[in-house]
Amino acid sequence: METNPCNNHVNGGSSIPSRVSRKTNSDNTIVNINGVKVGGSDIVIIAGPCAVESREQLFETARAVRMSGARILRGGAFKPRSSPYNFQGLGEEGLKLLSQIRKETGLPVVTEVMDTRQVELVSGYADMIQIGSRNMQNYPLLKEAGMGRKPVLLKRGMMATVEEFLLAAEYILNQGNEQVILCERGIRTFETSTRNTLDLSAVPMLKRLSHLPVIVDPSHGTGLRWMVPAMSKAAVAVGADGLIMEVHFKPEEALCDGYQSLNLDEFAQLMSDLKKIARAIGRKITLPEPSPV
Amino acid sequence: METNPCNNHVNGGSSIPSRVSRKTNSDNTIVNINGVKVGGSDIVIIAGPCAVESREQLFETARAVRMSGARILRGGAFKPRSSPYNFQGLGEEGLKLLSQIRKETGLPVVTEVMDTRQVELVSGYADMIQIGSRNMQNYPLLKEAGMGRKPVLLKRGMMATVEEFLLAAEYILNQGNEQVILCERGIRTFETSTRNTLDLSAVPMLKRLSHLPVIVDPSHGTGLRWMVPAMSKAAVAVGADGLIMEVHFKPEEALCDGYQSLNLDEFAQLMSDLKKIARAIGRKITLPEPSPV
Amino acid sequence: METNPCNNHVNGGSSIPSRVSRKTNSDNTIVNINGVKVGGSDIVIIAGPCAVESREQLFETARAVRMSGARILRGGAFKPRSSPYNFQGLGEEGLKLLSQIRKETGLPVVTEVMDTRQVELVSGYADMIQIGSRNMQNYPLLKEAGMGRKPVLLKRGMMATVEEFLLAAEYILNQGNEQVILCERGIRTFETSTRNTLDLSAVPMLKRLSHLPVIVDPSHGTGLRWMVPAMSKAAVAVGADGLIMEVHFKPEEALCDGYQSLNLDEFAQLMSDLKKIARAIGRKITLPEPSPV
Amino acid sequence: METNPCNNHVNGGSSIPSRVSRKTNSDNTIVNINGVKVGGSDIVIIAGPCAVESREQLFETARAVRMSGARILRGGAFKPRSSPYNFQGLGEEGLKLLSQIRKETGLPVVTEVMDTRQVELVSGYADMIQIGSRNMQNYPLLKEAGMGRKPVLLKRGMMATVEEFLLAAEYILNQGNEQVILCERGIRTFETSTRNTLDLSAVPMLKRLSHLPVIVDPSHGTGLRWMVPAMSKAAVAVGADGLIMEVHFKPEEALCDGYQSLNLDEFAQLMSDLKKIARAIGRKITLPEPSPV
Repeated sequence: METNPCNNHVNGGSSIPSRVSRKTNSDNTIVNINGVKVGGSDIVIIAGPCAVESREQLFETARAVRMSGARILRGGAFKPRSSPYNFQGLGEEGLKLLSQIRKETGLPVVTEVMDTRQVELVSGYADMIQIGSRNMQNYPLLKEAGMGRKPVLLKRGMMATVEEFLLAAEYILNQGNEQVILCERGIRTFETSTRNTLDLSAVPMLKRLSHLPVIVDPSHGTGLRWMVPAMSKAAVAVGADGLIMEVHFKPEEALCDGYQSLNLDEFAQLMSDLKKIARAIGRKITLPEPSPV
Repeated sequence: METNPCNNHVNGGSSIPSRVSRKTNSDNTIVNINGVKVGGSDIVIIAGPCAVESREQLFETARAVRMSGARILRGGAFKPRSSPYNFQGLGEEGLKLLSQIRKETGLPVVTEVMDTRQVELVSGYADMIQIGSRNMQNYPLLKEAGMGRKPVLLKRGMMATVEEFLLAAEYILNQGNEQVILCERGIRTFETSTRNTLDLSAVPMLKRLSHLPVIVDPSHGTGLRWMVPAMSKAAVAVGADGLIMEVHFKPEEALCDGYQSLNLDEFAQLMSDLKKIARAIGRKITLPEPSPV
Repeated sequence: METNPCNNHVNGGSSIPSRVSRKTNSDNTIVNINGVKVGGSDIVIIAGPCAVESREQLFETARAVRMSGARILRGGAFKPRSSPYNFQGLGEEGLKLLSQIRKETGLPVVTEVMDTRQVELVSGYADMIQIGSRNMQNYPLLKEAGMGRKPVLLKRGMMATVEEFLLAAEYILNQGNEQVILCERGIRTFETSTRNTLDLSAVPMLKRLSHLPVIVDPSHGTGLRWMVPAMSKAAVAVGADGLIMEVHFKPEEALCDGYQSLNLDEFAQLMSDLKKIARAIGRKITLPEPSPV
Repeated sequence: METNPCNNHVNGGSSIPSRVSRKTNSDNTIVNINGVKVGGSDIVIIAGPCAVESREQLFETARAVRMSGARILRGGAFKPRSSPYNFQGLGEEGLKLLSQIRKETGLPVVTEVMDTRQVELVSGYADMIQIGSRNMQNYPLLKEAGMGRKPVLLKRGMMATVEEFLLAAEYILNQGNEQVILCERGIRTFETSTRNTLDLSAVPMLKRLSHLPVIVDPSHGTGLRWMVPAMSKAAVAVGADGLIMEVHFKPEEALCDGYQSLNLDEFAQLMSDLKKIARAIGRKITLPEPSPV
């Protein structure tokens, strides 16, 4: 059968690009997000709301996840939504709120950027910028993030192979920015009982092929609040360097993704369970430093 | 079983957005690309090289596809490539060449834009701008294209449902630009003998749900030169309003996608075959106007 | 990246088995179903109800599809159903009805077999036995069919690659039965607006790789009655040697698959349209011989 | 958008069949395989070679996995192979060897059955019969297993939804046999770096929807020996009631699946690691009883 010489899908894996490859750098890369290190023996939990909705929502959620052991705060100001009629985020107002609560809690902040024209603006507020699934192959955006100095959280496209994911990361490294974290967040399959199919095998595969840290997003990976704890435990057991989770102080009132967000109690319980799994595999989950305020 | 209230995948199709919906506009929309109309009884063939590589390559190919009956010229100046080390296109130099050959042949030109910052530049040269598969959910880019006045060729994401595809088009229409052509170009499945799986059922589905014209890209849809003719005939038979194909005067020397590009003779033969299929279903393929030069 | 040496999915197509391969037999195989030849220049239409439900339903449908130009009658007596609580078919009673209407109309009959223990029984009534999608890799059943002398209609598994499909056919040929027709009937993908994704590119691919005839099932391939005509035309245009379609005299009362069955008028209209497409590609659809009764 | 009323894929999960449903039986079903109980607080490990190849291979492997803590022995006598030219198993000779080593080690035996005509034969030797992925929708086989009294290990089809998987189990329960274990073994997706994509989210989903025990097969789920340990740990952490793994005393000489089989040392090390994970989630892995010999 003739195969297609330029088909990354068919020839999958024949050529892992050089800068992300473990052959280039056999040591694990440690990404430093304003003092929080991802990629070492600590497992780092990133938590917060899907979207920044209001001062109260953000601040209450942030304080609580910090208390339970989250080390980095997540929250979207510019939201990629399938429909133009859905809530699109607070924009720069959201970035300002993130900046304020960082000051109070000491938690570094990660937030998404969707447009090359916003990279500079977002980088001015965030400690790490996120490039979402839908933009994993937005090459101008990858290049722009690669030219900046902020760490980049790159999420796997929902239909990207492991090889394509690494090629996307290579675009960032190739511009000079080596502070990249890879995030498995579920792929699209025929199964519809979950929002996506969380591909936990991507974690050991990525860690074998690349020196970059790998984290998991069980919220988007399942789309089901009740399933987030089980898949979080599995993600820690499989070897992830961290998790990024949606947590909301009132999930039932969330403007975005409430059905997959943990409430504050659920998150606290989960953190306690995750510490046991981390210990069982010889790693640990460290609490944040005492609050700066 | 609990299902996910916000999962477009699960709830597929429950809510086709309003501006693209046939319920809003029961007449077929006709998109006018500098005089060439897509969406009526004529089936319009768009042809040309994957990437503009040189004056000779572009001009010889353009003259030949025009002679065989192509009505619109395609050619990439900014190329989205999986690897940062592949040929990335000639940039503005490529746009200038497209503009020159348009003058000579009278063929309107379609070319891809990947970055919000380039929309104005590309719109200054092209008669229709293309938003590629990888950017189908690049919402800032969709909005920017929607604020312009050039027709937009929107390609289906390789992982996008029909509903998500229509939602992406809605982003463009919602900004005021209703001149949008939808393009089925193959989806990603488990099958690896073809580059993608060309989903021809999307054509009747999209035409039933929406008033926008629908065309098919058999080159990316198959990734195999020898298969392009068979799938092109099928696309015409199934009801597509047009085709967009990669044609190169010397495919074996192409810098991009040569393995899926027809040569000039193959294209001429195919055009002759397509006319018969068009006639069999009561449509037609019209030759271009006599050359303006 | 390490690849898996035994993964047919990864190594797709590296080794088409010998008996089905075109390299072994460069001439097209003609399958003779009690006088009706599939694989030559004639395009053969197989039609009838999903399941045999009653004498009236079967006989009225059979007479009508014959009048419109169907050459072979389909109808299930043993039905594979996802749920044990759905109608499971009439069993041998259904086979007897098929045999009676064959006598009246002269139409050869194809019906499904699911169990090795039934192959002999079904072969005693049918002119061609069908192995359905769910049993494409039921190896004991393939071997049993291969040991018989009745032609076999083998449907592609909804999850099977082209290579696996050919390997399944090889099991039949390897037992000595070379009268095998391959049937593309839709694969499972992430898209949910259609029941399956009809992979028409499998037709030219299979015909290039193998000498066996290839037909298409647009009823299961789409699951939508209104879409069957468009996909049938595309299947003829792409080069299929025949079609197998569900037709019911009263689709709204069908015990099985009524939503994807054409009624008698729709089928008659479609046959008329298909003849034009066949002519446009240099093939033809021949009417059945005058009825023997 | 019209959806398809009979499309299990679209309507996924609307109707979990009654006998397997947790609504029918809120207590976990405990399956008793000749004294070994699956579905309680113990996590049960099933291990052994892909295929029974010889007395030495089977016996040495069986003794070693027992020493490391496996409670049930696996080994195929009738093998479903994609190609008719691959090793098809030793047949009844293999069953006899399994029976002999059971006597020596006291380990109950599970082995696959593919043909309705073999169910009685295989049940005469095995303590649990396995229905493999390719036969998940082989309804006559499901019914035959349902009429027997041996526990059934039912593997998920590689392209079956969770709902279809439960419907297949329902076929068995509906015949009167309620001793069914469900096994997630990887689904087919677009990703090709692993043999299948192990869908660990199916474990909590199945346990929520059904009272039946759920185990995981990390060997077929990944197809990569080095990845089996990581995914095994994840499977225990996510809540699986057991694992089924391929172990071979000399993987490099295996006639089948050697690339995904652990050797004896790797298995011993993994068992030790799994005990820690089990403890971290409040469960345990118990050693087999002292050998009867």
